[in-house]
Amino acid sequence: MGVDPGLTRCGLGVIDASTGRRVKLVEFGLVATPQDDPLDQRLLAVAEAVGEWLDRLEPQVLAVERVFAQRNAFTVAGTMQASGVAIVEAARRGLEVAVHTPTEVKAAVTGSGQAAKEQVGAMVARLLGLESAPRPPDAADALALAICHAWRPTSLGSATGRAATEAQQAWAAAAKAAKRRSRQGWAAA
Amino acid sequence: MGVDPGLTRCGLGVIDASTGRRVKLVEFGLVATPQDDPLDQRLLAVAEAVGEWLDRLEPQVLAVERVFAQRNAFTVAGTMQASGVAIVEAARRGLEVAVHTPTEVKAAVTGSGQAAKEQVGAMVARLLGLESAPRPPDAADALALAICHAWRPTSLGSATGRAATEAQQAWAAAAKAAKRRSRQGWAAA
Repeated sequence: MGVDPGLTRCGLGVIDASTGRRVKLVEFGLVATPQDDPLDQRLLAVAEAVGEWLDRLEPQVLAVERVFAQRNAFTVAGTMQASGVAIVEAARRGLEVAVHTPTEVKAAVTGSGQAAKEQVGAMVARLLGLESAPRPPDAADALALAICHAWRPTSLGSATGRAATEAQQAWAAAAKAAKRRSRQGWAAA
Repeated sequence: MGVDPGLTRCGLGVIDASTGRRVKLVEFGLVATPQDDPLDQRLLAVAEAVGEWLDRLEPQVLAVERVFAQRNAFTVAGTMQASGVAIVEAARRGLEVAVHTPTEVKAAVTGSGQAAKEQVGAMVARLLGLESAPRPPDAADALALAICHAWRPTSLGSATGRAATEAQQAWAAAAKAAKRRSRQGWAAA
């Protein structure tokens, strides 16, 4: 299950990746909370929605987008708070939690860490066999996160033993760059 | 109950402010999580500690320090995530949640929004009748938050009808400045 954290719009997406490289759509959706609602009620809505999805769909892993402190200073606080809340819902249920950067996710599904949002949506649709990109983009991003995690090099390497595809190579490069940034102090922790 | 959010050190403090301006210590403490632990386990530890305090001590309000995006970029993500997690624990239990800026808190307990950390600790000790400042400073800050909330101008005004003290005037000025900043986009939501 992928979560694209946010307060105004929090994307959720669950895939079935049990059969190697093939991924199948299970469900996608959005938690939207009104900007005028009190912060605590908005965060609670995110927590309850994520918890309900985890209980009902029983994913094995929660993959959350890493939020960087310097991007979108206006909304970054709420986004980070929402990501913390989602992570705790998974931890409370004993699930594995993974964090991936937006660059890693884009590289995993499109082959380029600089891909546009529309390209990510289009690739998510193609990979999951959907007629069009999941809407809204937050939900598509959540599915992309889930795919990114299912296809992370360590997982695939051991599962299939095949050589890395171009997309995987781009993924690995993005992951390496993120690690570098993280050592410089941009880690989510 | 006040919470000074953080992952490495999260300060907790509960006071009894039921008798107007007088405040009494109930309990203070710290949730500390090792920096090497996985993020999800650290956030879960914060959630469980805050939840346990809420259930055991039954405060009426949770006051949380507002974290600003631009301060301490290195640790701000974890701090924001921890604050979101604490807020949800209170919301889940139907408690009122209040957010105060560091400047408001300092002004409320010392009369100056620019007071040093030691001064805050010393004033918390004096106000609560303790022999020395609560340690570590995170716990003292959590108690200061609780005092700040108990003494917020609207609360005191209606409770006592007395003219504002110098500290309260400084508090009101800091709150006003924070509101201004918040309108400019620095709100925690």
